[in-house]
Amino acid sequence: MLFFTQCFGAVLDLIHLRFQHYKAKRVFSAAGQLVCVVNPTHSLKYAPTRCAAAQASTEQGILPPCHHHEAVHDPQLVPCTCPLFSCPWEGHLEVVVSHLRQTHRINILQGAEIVFLATDMHLPAPTDWIIMHSCLGHQFLLVLRKQEKYEGHPQFFATMMLIGTPTQADNFTYRLELNRNQRRLKWEATPRSVLECVDSVISDGDCLVLNTSLAQLFSDNGSLAIGIAITTSKVHNAEAEM
Amino acid sequence: MLFFTQCFGAVLDLIHLRFQHYKAKRVFSAAGQLVCVVNPTHSLKYAPTRCAAAQASTEQGILPPCHHHEAVHDPQLVPCTCPLFSCPWEGHLEVVVSHLRQTHRINILQGAEIVFLATDMHLPAPTDWIIMHSCLGHQFLLVLRKQEKYEGHPQFFATMMLIGTPTQADNFTYRLELNRNQRRLKWEATPRSVLECVDSVISDGDCLVLNTSLAQLFSDNGSLAIGIAITTSKVHNAEAEM
Repeated sequence: MLFFTQCFGAVLDLIHLRFQHYKAKRVFSAAGQLVCVVNPTHSLKYAPTRCAAAQASTEQGILPPCHHHEAVHDPQLVPCTCPLFSCPWEGHLEVVVSHLRQTHRINILQGAEIVFLATDMHLPAPTDWIIMHSCLGHQFLLVLRKQEKYEGHPQFFATMMLIGTPTQADNFTYRLELNRNQRRLKWEATPRSVLECVDSVISDGDCLVLNTSLAQLFSDNGSLAIGIAITTSKVHNAEAEM
Repeated sequence: MLFFTQCFGAVLDLIHLRFQHYKAKRVFSAAGQLVCVVNPTHSLKYAPTRCAAAQASTEQGILPPCHHHEAVHDPQLVPCTCPLFSCPWEGHLEVVVSHLRQTHRINILQGAEIVFLATDMHLPAPTDWIIMHSCLGHQFLLVLRKQEKYEGHPQFFATMMLIGTPTQADNFTYRLELNRNQRRLKWEATPRSVLECVDSVISDGDCLVLNTSLAQLFSDNGSLAIGIAITTSKVHNAEAEM
Protein backbone atom coordinates (compact mmCIF):
# COMPACT_ATOMS: atom_id res chain seq x y z
CA MET A 1 0.00 0.00 0.00
CA LEU A 2 2.85 2.36 1.00
CA PHE A 3 4.57 1.53 -2.31
CA PHE A 4 1.48 2.54 -4.32
CA THR A 5 1.09 5.77 -2.31
CA GLN A 6 4.73 6.67 -3.03
CA CYS A 7 4.29 5.86 -6.73
CA PHE A 8 1.21 8.07 -6.86
CA GLY A 9 3.16 10.90 -5.18
CA ALA A 10 5.98 10.56 -7.72
CA VAL A 11 3.50 10.69 -10.63
CA LEU A 12 1.92 13.83 -9.17
CA ASP A 13 5.37 15.45 -8.85
CA LEU A 14 6.12 14.63 -12.50
CA ILE A 15 2.81 16.11 -13.65
CA HIS A 16 3.53 19.29 -11.62
CA LEU A 17 7.05 19.56 -13.14
CA ARG A 18 5.65 19.09 -16.64
CA PHE A 19 3.04 21.79 -15.97
CA GLN A 20 5.76 24.22 -14.76
CA HIS A 21 7.80 23.58 -17.91
CA TYR A 22 4.74 24.14 -20.06
CA LYS A 23 4.16 27.46 -18.29
CA ALA A 24 7.80 28.41 -18.82
CA LYS A 25 7.60 27.65 -22.52
CA ARG A 26 4.42 29.66 -22.81
CA VAL A 27 5.90 32.71 -21.03
CA PHE A 28 9.24 32.70 -22.84
CA SER A 29 8.85 30.77 -26.04
CA ALA A 30 11.91 32.18 -27.81
CA ALA A 31 13.26 29.19 -29.70
CA GLY A 32 16.59 27.88 -28.47
CA GLN A 33 16.47 29.56 -25.08
CA LEU A 34 16.89 27.26 -22.11
CA VAL A 35 14.07 27.68 -19.60
CA CYS A 36 14.74 26.73 -16.00
CA VAL A 37 11.97 26.43 -13.42
CA VAL A 38 13.17 27.70 -10.06
CA ASN A 39 11.26 26.89 -6.89
CA PRO A 40 11.48 29.19 -3.89
CA THR A 41 13.85 28.76 -0.97
CA HIS A 42 12.16 30.16 2.10
CA SER A 43 14.76 32.06 4.13
CA LEU A 44 14.69 31.00 7.74
CA LYS A 45 16.33 34.05 9.22
CA TYR A 46 17.81 37.41 8.31
CA ALA A 47 20.87 38.92 10.00
CA PRO A 48 21.02 42.51 8.77
CA THR A 49 24.46 43.24 10.24
CA ARG A 50 26.24 40.22 8.77
CA CYS A 51 27.96 42.40 6.16
CA ALA A 52 29.26 44.92 8.68
CA ALA A 53 32.91 43.84 8.72
CA ALA A 54 32.93 42.33 5.25
CA GLN A 55 34.86 44.71 3.06
CA ALA A 56 38.47 43.96 4.06
CA SER A 57 38.60 40.31 3.11
CA THR A 58 36.80 40.28 -0.25
CA GLU A 59 39.89 40.46 -2.48
CA GLN A 60 41.50 37.43 -0.78
CA GLY A 61 38.80 35.07 -2.01
CA ILE A 62 37.30 34.69 1.43
CA LEU A 63 33.73 35.45 2.30
CA PRO A 64 33.27 37.86 5.23
CA PRO A 65 33.03 36.78 8.88
CA CYS A 66 29.30 37.13 8.89
CA HIS A 67 27.98 35.41 11.96
CA HIS A 68 30.70 36.76 14.25
CA HIS A 69 30.92 40.29 12.95
CA GLU A 70 31.79 41.86 16.30
CA ALA A 71 34.93 39.73 16.83
CA VAL A 72 38.33 40.47 15.25
CA HIS A 73 39.36 37.92 12.60
CA ASP A 74 42.47 37.27 10.58
CA PRO A 75 41.11 37.55 7.01
CA GLN A 76 43.37 34.69 5.84
CA LEU A 77 41.86 32.28 8.32
CA VAL A 78 38.24 33.26 8.33
CA PRO A 79 36.01 30.66 6.69
CA CYS A 80 33.34 31.88 4.29
CA THR A 81 29.61 31.59 4.46
CA CYS A 82 27.15 30.12 2.01
CA PRO A 83 25.43 32.90 0.03
CA LEU A 84 22.11 31.40 1.11
CA PHE A 85 20.86 33.07 4.23
CA SER A 86 19.22 30.09 5.82
CA CYS A 87 22.38 27.99 5.62
CA PRO A 88 25.03 27.96 8.39
CA TRP A 89 27.67 26.39 6.10
CA GLU A 90 31.08 28.07 5.80
CA GLY A 91 33.81 27.32 3.29
CA HIS A 92 36.24 28.83 0.79
CA LEU A 93 35.29 30.33 -2.58
CA GLU A 94 36.52 27.31 -4.54
CA VAL A 95 33.98 24.98 -2.93
CA VAL A 96 30.92 27.25 -3.02
CA VAL A 97 29.68 25.71 -6.30
CA SER A 98 29.90 22.13 -5.09
CA HIS A 99 28.26 23.07 -1.77
CA LEU A 100 25.34 24.78 -3.57
CA ARG A 101 24.88 21.82 -5.92
CA GLN A 102 25.22 19.05 -3.36
CA THR A 103 23.58 20.50 -0.27
CA HIS A 104 20.97 22.81 -1.77
CA ARG A 105 20.49 20.94 -5.06
CA ILE A 106 20.68 24.25 -6.91
CA ASN A 107 20.71 23.63 -10.64
CA ILE A 108 23.60 24.83 -12.75
CA LEU A 109 22.70 25.80 -16.31
CA GLN A 110 24.96 26.22 -19.34
CA GLY A 111 24.50 28.83 -22.04
CA ALA A 112 24.91 32.54 -22.72
CA GLU A 113 21.16 33.21 -22.52
CA ILE A 114 18.71 31.42 -20.26
CA VAL A 115 15.25 32.05 -18.85
CA PHE A 116 14.78 31.88 -15.08
CA LEU A 117 11.19 31.05 -14.16
CA ALA A 118 10.52 31.77 -10.50
CA THR A 119 7.39 30.00 -9.25
CA ASP A 120 5.05 30.78 -6.36
CA MET A 121 5.70 34.53 -6.27
CA HIS A 122 2.83 34.89 -3.79
CA LEU A 123 4.82 33.26 -0.96
CA PRO A 124 5.43 35.62 1.97
CA ALA A 125 8.73 37.50 2.36
CA PRO A 126 11.54 36.68 3.00
CA THR A 127 11.89 34.16 0.16
CA ASP A 128 14.78 33.49 -2.24
CA TRP A 129 14.83 31.99 -5.74
CA ILE A 130 18.35 30.94 -6.73
CA ILE A 131 20.05 29.39 -9.73
CA MET A 132 23.64 28.95 -10.89
CA HIS A 133 24.57 29.86 -14.42
CA SER A 134 27.73 28.57 -16.06
CA CYS A 135 28.87 30.86 -18.86
CA LEU A 136 32.07 32.21 -20.43
CA GLY A 137 34.20 29.92 -18.26
CA HIS A 138 32.72 31.12 -14.95
CA GLN A 139 29.85 30.35 -12.63
CA PHE A 140 27.30 33.00 -11.74
CA LEU A 141 24.58 33.00 -9.11
CA LEU A 142 21.23 34.62 -9.81
CA VAL A 143 19.40 35.62 -6.65
CA LEU A 144 15.80 36.80 -6.71
CA ARG A 145 14.66 37.84 -3.26
CA LYS A 146 11.28 38.87 -1.93
CA GLN A 147 11.86 41.12 1.05
CA GLU A 148 10.05 43.79 3.05
CA LYS A 149 12.31 46.84 3.13
CA TYR A 150 9.31 48.86 4.25
CA GLU A 151 7.04 46.94 6.61
CA GLY A 152 3.97 45.54 4.90
CA HIS A 153 5.33 46.37 1.42
CA PRO A 154 7.24 43.39 0.00
CA GLN A 155 9.46 44.07 -3.01
CA PHE A 156 11.41 41.81 -5.36
CA PHE A 157 15.15 42.29 -5.81
CA ALA A 158 17.11 40.48 -8.53
CA THR A 159 20.88 40.49 -8.90
CA MET A 160 23.64 38.39 -10.40
CA MET A 161 26.82 37.51 -8.49
CA LEU A 162 30.01 35.98 -9.84
CA ILE A 163 31.35 33.01 -7.90
CA GLY A 164 34.77 34.62 -8.10
CA THR A 165 36.62 37.74 -6.96
CA PRO A 166 35.45 41.36 -7.51
CA THR A 167 38.34 41.83 -10.01
CA GLN A 168 37.07 38.89 -12.08
CA ALA A 169 33.49 40.19 -11.82
CA ASP A 170 34.51 43.51 -13.42
CA ASN A 171 35.07 41.68 -16.72
CA PHE A 172 31.39 40.86 -17.20
CA THR A 173 28.03 42.49 -17.78
CA TYR A 174 24.75 40.78 -16.99
CA ARG A 175 21.30 41.64 -18.28
CA LEU A 176 17.97 40.78 -16.68
CA GLU A 177 14.85 41.26 -18.79
CA LEU A 178 11.14 41.08 -18.02
CA ASN A 179 8.68 41.16 -20.91
CA ARG A 180 4.92 40.80 -20.57
CA ASN A 181 1.63 42.68 -20.85
CA GLN A 182 3.07 45.26 -23.29
CA ARG A 183 5.71 46.23 -20.76
CA ARG A 184 9.40 45.56 -20.84
CA LEU A 185 11.99 46.20 -18.13
CA LYS A 186 15.72 45.66 -18.67
CA TRP A 187 18.52 45.99 -16.13
CA GLU A 188 22.18 45.80 -17.14
CA ALA A 189 25.10 46.01 -14.74
CA THR A 190 28.43 44.54 -13.77
CA PRO A 191 27.89 41.49 -11.54
CA ARG A 192 29.08 41.67 -7.96
CA SER A 193 31.30 39.01 -6.45
CA VAL A 194 29.75 36.54 -3.98
CA LEU A 195 32.51 37.76 -1.66
CA GLU A 196 30.52 40.97 -1.35
CA CYS A 197 27.34 40.19 0.59
CA VAL A 198 24.23 39.79 -1.55
CA ASP A 199 22.32 41.45 1.30
CA SER A 200 24.24 44.70 0.96
CA VAL A 201 23.56 44.79 -2.80
CA ILE A 202 19.87 44.35 -2.06
CA SER A 203 19.72 46.77 0.87
CA ASP A 204 21.47 49.40 -1.31
CA GLY A 205 18.87 48.73 -4.03
CA ASP A 206 21.70 48.46 -6.59
CA CYS A 207 19.86 45.77 -8.55
CA LEU A 208 16.61 45.20 -10.41
CA VAL A 209 13.84 46.27 -8.04
CA LEU A 210 10.15 45.46 -8.55
CA ASN A 211 7.25 46.45 -6.38
CA THR A 212 4.46 43.89 -5.93
CA SER A 213 2.07 45.40 -8.47
CA LEU A 214 4.74 45.54 -11.18
CA ALA A 215 5.81 41.96 -10.37
CA GLN A 216 2.17 40.90 -10.83
CA LEU A 217 2.00 42.64 -14.22
CA PHE A 218 5.08 40.70 -15.34
CA SER A 219 3.92 37.39 -13.82
CA ASP A 220 1.91 34.65 -15.46
CA ASN A 221 -0.18 32.61 -13.07
CA GLY A 222 2.13 33.26 -10.11
CA SER A 223 5.39 32.67 -12.01
CA LEU A 224 7.87 35.35 -13.04
CA ALA A 225 10.07 34.74 -16.10
CA ILE A 226 13.39 36.60 -16.15
CA GLY A 227 15.56 36.46 -19.26
CA ILE A 228 19.26 36.37 -18.36
CA ALA A 229 22.22 37.14 -20.60
CA ILE A 230 25.89 37.48 -19.71
CA THR A 231 28.55 39.11 -21.87
CA THR A 232 32.10 40.27 -21.42
CA SER A 233 32.02 43.91 -20.37
CA LYS A 234 34.02 45.44 -23.24
CA VAL A 235 30.90 46.03 -25.35
CA HIS A 236 29.01 47.49 -22.39
CA ASN A 237 31.86 49.87 -21.53
CA ALA A 238 32.16 51.04 -25.11
CA GLU A 239 28.43 51.82 -25.18
CA ALA A 240 28.59 53.56 -21.81
CA GLU A 241 31.30 55.84 -23.13
CA MET A 242 29.05 56.95 -26.02
CA MET B 1 21.99 100.84 -9.50
CA LEU B 2 18.84 98.68 -9.70
CA PHE B 3 19.41 98.37 -13.46
CA PHE B 4 22.96 97.05 -12.95
CA THR B 5 21.76 94.59 -10.26
CA GLN B 6 19.12 93.25 -12.67
CA CYS B 7 21.67 92.97 -15.49
CA PHE B 8 24.02 91.06 -13.17
CA GLY B 9 21.16 88.71 -12.22
CA ALA B 10 20.33 88.07 -15.88
CA VAL B 11 24.00 87.31 -16.67
CA LEU B 12 24.13 84.86 -13.73
CA ASP B 13 20.96 83.13 -15.03
CA LEU B 14 22.51 82.81 -18.49
CA ILE B 15 25.71 81.32 -17.03
CA HIS B 16 23.61 78.83 -14.99
CA LEU B 17 21.61 77.83 -18.10
CA ARG B 18 24.79 77.39 -20.11
CA PHE B 19 26.24 75.21 -17.31
CA GLN B 20 23.09 73.02 -17.28
CA HIS B 21 23.31 72.54 -21.05
CA TYR B 22 26.98 71.66 -20.73
CA LYS B 23 26.09 69.05 -18.07
CA ALA B 24 23.37 67.65 -20.33
CA LYS B 25 25.75 67.33 -23.26
CA ARG B 26 28.29 65.62 -21.02
CA VAL B 27 25.79 63.10 -19.62
CA PHE B 28 24.17 62.23 -22.96
CA SER B 29 26.53 63.20 -25.71
CA ALA B 30 25.01 61.01 -28.44
CA ALA B 31 25.29 63.13 -31.55
CA GLY B 32 22.00 64.35 -32.96
CA GLN B 33 19.95 63.80 -29.81
CA LEU B 34 18.12 66.82 -28.52
CA VAL B 35 18.89 67.48 -24.86
CA CYS B 36 16.33 69.38 -22.82
CA VAL B 37 17.09 70.74 -19.35
CA VAL B 38 14.01 70.42 -17.13
CA ASN B 39 13.79 72.34 -13.89
CA PRO B 40 11.60 71.03 -11.06
CA THR B 41 8.03 72.10 -10.38
CA HIS B 42 7.45 71.88 -6.66
CA SER B 43 3.97 70.42 -6.08
CA LEU B 44 2.04 72.55 -3.65
CA LYS B 45 -0.49 69.95 -2.60
CA TYR B 46 -1.48 66.33 -3.13
CA ALA B 47 -5.06 65.07 -3.25
CA PRO B 48 -4.82 61.28 -3.13
CA THR B 49 -8.51 60.67 -3.81
CA ARG B 50 -8.80 62.88 -6.87
CA CYS B 51 -8.83 59.85 -9.19
CA ALA B 52 -11.57 58.03 -7.32
CA ALA B 53 -14.44 58.66 -9.77
CA ALA B 54 -12.25 59.08 -12.81
CA GLN B 55 -12.70 55.97 -14.89
CA ALA B 56 -16.14 56.55 -16.47
CA SER B 57 -15.38 59.74 -18.35
CA THR B 58 -11.95 58.97 -19.84
CA GLU B 59 -13.14 57.78 -23.26
CA GLN B 60 -15.16 60.96 -23.85
CA GLY B 61 -12.03 63.14 -23.98
CA ILE B 62 -12.78 64.71 -20.63
CA LEU B 63 -10.47 64.66 -17.65
CA PRO B 64 -12.02 63.25 -14.47
CA PRO B 65 -13.94 65.36 -11.93
CA CYS B 66 -11.01 65.40 -9.59
CA HIS B 67 -11.61 68.11 -7.05
CA HIS B 68 -15.27 67.26 -6.61
CA HIS B 69 -15.03 63.49 -6.58
CA GLU B 70 -17.87 62.97 -4.11
CA ALA B 71 -20.44 64.81 -6.25
CA VAL B 72 -22.32 63.24 -9.19
CA HIS B 73 -21.33 64.71 -12.57
CA ASP B 74 -22.57 64.41 -16.11
CA PRO B 75 -19.38 63.22 -17.88
CA GLN B 76 -20.21 65.33 -20.96
CA LEU B 77 -20.26 68.53 -18.93
CA VAL B 78 -17.44 68.02 -16.50
CA PRO B 79 -14.46 70.25 -17.20
CA CYS B 80 -11.00 68.69 -17.05
CA THR B 81 -8.13 69.39 -14.77
CA CYS B 82 -4.56 70.34 -15.54
CA PRO B 83 -2.29 67.28 -15.19
CA LEU B 84 -0.11 69.37 -12.87
CA PHE B 85 -1.12 68.85 -9.29
CA SER B 86 -0.43 72.32 -8.04
CA CYS B 87 -2.64 73.93 -10.69
CA PRO B 88 -6.38 74.49 -10.18
CA TRP B 89 -7.02 75.01 -13.91
CA GLU B 90 -9.72 72.99 -15.64
CA GLY B 91 -10.39 72.67 -19.36
CA HIS B 92 -11.03 70.27 -22.21
CA LEU B 93 -8.43 67.92 -23.72
CA GLU B 94 -7.94 70.06 -26.83
CA VAL B 95 -6.63 73.02 -24.83
CA VAL B 96 -4.34 71.15 -22.41
CA VAL B 97 -1.26 71.74 -24.60
CA SER B 98 -1.79 75.49 -24.90
CA HIS B 99 -2.51 75.76 -21.16
CA LEU B 100 0.71 73.89 -20.29
CA ARG B 101 2.75 76.04 -22.69
CA GLN B 102 1.27 79.40 -21.79
CA THR B 103 0.60 79.12 -18.07
CA HIS B 104 3.35 76.75 -16.97
CA ARG B 105 5.86 77.60 -19.72
CA ILE B 106 6.46 73.88 -20.21
CA ASN B 107 8.71 73.34 -23.22
CA ILE B 108 7.50 71.27 -26.14
CA LEU B 109 10.21 69.37 -28.00
CA GLN B 110 10.12 67.83 -31.47
CA GLY B 111 11.83 64.58 -32.42
CA ALA B 112 11.53 60.82 -32.07
CA GLU B 113 14.36 60.61 -29.52
CA ILE B 114 15.19 63.25 -26.92
CA VAL B 115 17.06 63.43 -23.64
CA PHE B 116 15.25 64.77 -20.60
CA LEU B 117 17.69 66.20 -18.05
CA ALA B 118 15.99 66.68 -14.68
CA THR B 119 17.96 69.07 -12.45
CA ASP B 120 18.07 69.43 -8.66
CA MET B 121 17.12 65.84 -7.85
CA HIS B 122 17.95 66.55 -4.20
CA LEU B 123 14.85 68.74 -3.73
CA PRO B 124 12.39 67.33 -1.17
CA ALA B 125 9.32 65.32 -2.26
CA PRO B 126 6.76 66.03 -3.66
CA THR B 127 8.40 67.51 -6.75
CA ASP B 128 7.54 67.13 -10.45
CA TRP B 129 9.70 67.50 -13.56
CA ILE B 130 7.57 67.82 -16.70
CA ILE B 131 8.14 68.22 -20.41
CA MET B 132 5.98 67.91 -23.51
CA HIS B 133 7.19 65.89 -26.45
CA SER B 134 5.76 66.30 -29.93
CA CYS B 135 6.25 63.18 -32.01
CA LEU B 136 4.44 61.09 -34.66
CA GLY B 137 1.71 63.70 -34.95
CA HIS B 138 0.82 63.71 -31.25
CA GLN B 139 1.86 65.44 -28.05
CA PHE B 140 3.12 63.44 -25.08
CA LEU B 141 3.76 64.52 -21.52
CA LEU B 142 6.71 63.10 -19.60
CA VAL B 143 6.22 63.30 -15.85
CA LEU B 144 9.04 62.53 -13.41
CA ARG B 145 7.81 62.71 -9.84
CA LYS B 146 9.66 62.48 -6.54
CA GLN B 147 7.21 61.18 -3.95
CA GLU B 148 7.22 59.44 -0.59
CA LYS B 149 5.05 56.34 -0.93
CA TYR B 150 6.62 55.07 2.27
CA GLU B 151 7.25 57.84 4.80
CA GLY B 152 10.87 58.94 4.90
CA HIS B 153 11.73 56.98 1.72
CA PRO B 154 11.32 59.19 -1.36
CA GLN B 155 11.24 57.41 -4.72
CA PHE B 156 11.27 58.64 -8.31
CA PHE B 157 8.48 57.65 -10.70
CA ALA B 158 8.67 58.35 -14.44
CA THR B 159 5.87 57.86 -16.92
CA MET B 160 4.74 59.11 -20.31
CA MET B 161 1.16 60.19 -21.01
CA LEU B 162 -0.46 60.93 -24.35
CA ILE B 163 -2.39 64.18 -24.58
CA GLY B 164 -5.18 62.25 -26.25
CA THR B 165 -7.65 59.44 -25.53
CA PRO B 166 -6.76 55.96 -24.18
CA THR B 167 -7.64 54.46 -27.59
CA GLN B 168 -5.13 56.77 -29.30
CA ALA B 169 -2.54 55.97 -26.60
CA ASP B 170 -2.74 52.24 -27.39
CA ASN B 171 -1.08 52.92 -30.76
CA PHE B 172 2.25 53.92 -29.21
CA THR B 173 5.13 52.54 -27.18
CA TYR B 174 7.47 54.74 -25.18
CA ARG B 175 10.91 53.88 -23.88
CA LEU B 176 12.74 55.52 -20.97
CA GLU B 177 16.43 54.76 -20.58
CA LEU B 178 18.98 55.53 -17.89
CA ASN B 179 22.63 54.82 -18.58
CA ARG B 180 25.49 55.65 -16.25
CA ASN B 181 28.12 54.11 -13.96
CA GLN B 182 28.11 50.80 -15.86
CA ARG B 183 24.43 50.36 -15.21
CA ARG B 184 21.56 50.59 -17.65
CA LEU B 185 17.85 50.55 -16.93
CA LYS B 186 15.22 50.52 -19.68
CA TRP B 187 11.45 50.71 -19.32
CA GLU B 188 9.11 50.20 -22.27
CA ALA B 189 5.34 50.43 -22.12
CA THR B 190 2.23 51.79 -23.78
CA PRO B 191 1.68 55.41 -22.72
CA ARG B 192 -1.41 56.19 -20.68
CA SER B 193 -3.81 58.94 -21.64
CA VAL B 194 -3.76 62.17 -19.60
CA LEU B 195 -7.47 61.44 -19.13
CA GLU B 196 -6.36 58.69 -16.75
CA CYS B 197 -4.87 60.35 -13.67
CA VAL B 198 -1.07 60.40 -13.58
CA ASP B 199 -1.37 59.89 -9.81
CA SER B 200 -3.05 56.50 -10.21
CA VAL B 201 -0.30 55.36 -12.61
CA ILE B 202 2.28 56.38 -10.03
CA SER B 203 0.44 54.97 -7.01
CA ASP B 204 0.05 51.65 -8.88
CA GLY B 205 3.80 51.73 -9.59
CA ASP B 206 3.05 50.91 -13.26
CA CYS B 207 5.94 53.06 -14.47
CA LEU B 208 9.71 53.37 -14.15
CA VAL B 209 10.44 53.36 -10.41
CA LEU B 210 13.77 54.34 -8.88
CA ASN B 211 14.73 54.36 -5.24
CA THR B 212 16.97 57.19 -4.05
CA SER B 213 20.24 55.24 -4.11
CA LEU B 214 19.67 54.03 -7.67
CA ALA B 215 18.69 57.56 -8.76
CA GLN B 216 21.99 58.79 -7.29
CA LEU B 217 23.94 56.13 -9.22
CA PHE B 218 22.31 57.32 -12.45
CA SER B 219 22.68 61.02 -11.63
CA ASP B 220 25.53 63.33 -12.51
CA ASN B 221 26.02 66.20 -10.11
CA GLY B 222 22.38 66.25 -9.03
CA SER B 223 20.91 65.89 -12.55
CA LEU B 224 19.25 62.79 -13.96
CA ALA B 225 19.36 62.22 -17.73
CA ILE B 226 16.52 60.11 -19.16
CA GLY B 227 16.63 59.10 -22.82
CA ILE B 228 13.13 59.06 -24.33
CA ALA B 229 11.99 57.37 -27.52
CA ILE B 230 8.48 56.93 -28.90
CA THR B 231 7.45 54.46 -31.58
CA THR B 232 4.20 53.14 -32.98
CA SER B 233 3.30 50.02 -31.04
CA LYS B 234 3.19 47.51 -33.92
CA VAL B 235 6.87 46.61 -33.47
CA HIS B 236 6.52 46.27 -29.70
CA ASN B 237 3.47 44.04 -30.01
CA ALA B 238 5.19 41.80 -32.52
CA GLU B 239 8.15 41.37 -30.14
CA ALA B 240 5.90 40.73 -27.17
CA GLU B 241 4.19 37.94 -29.07
CA MET B 242 7.52 36.17 -29.65
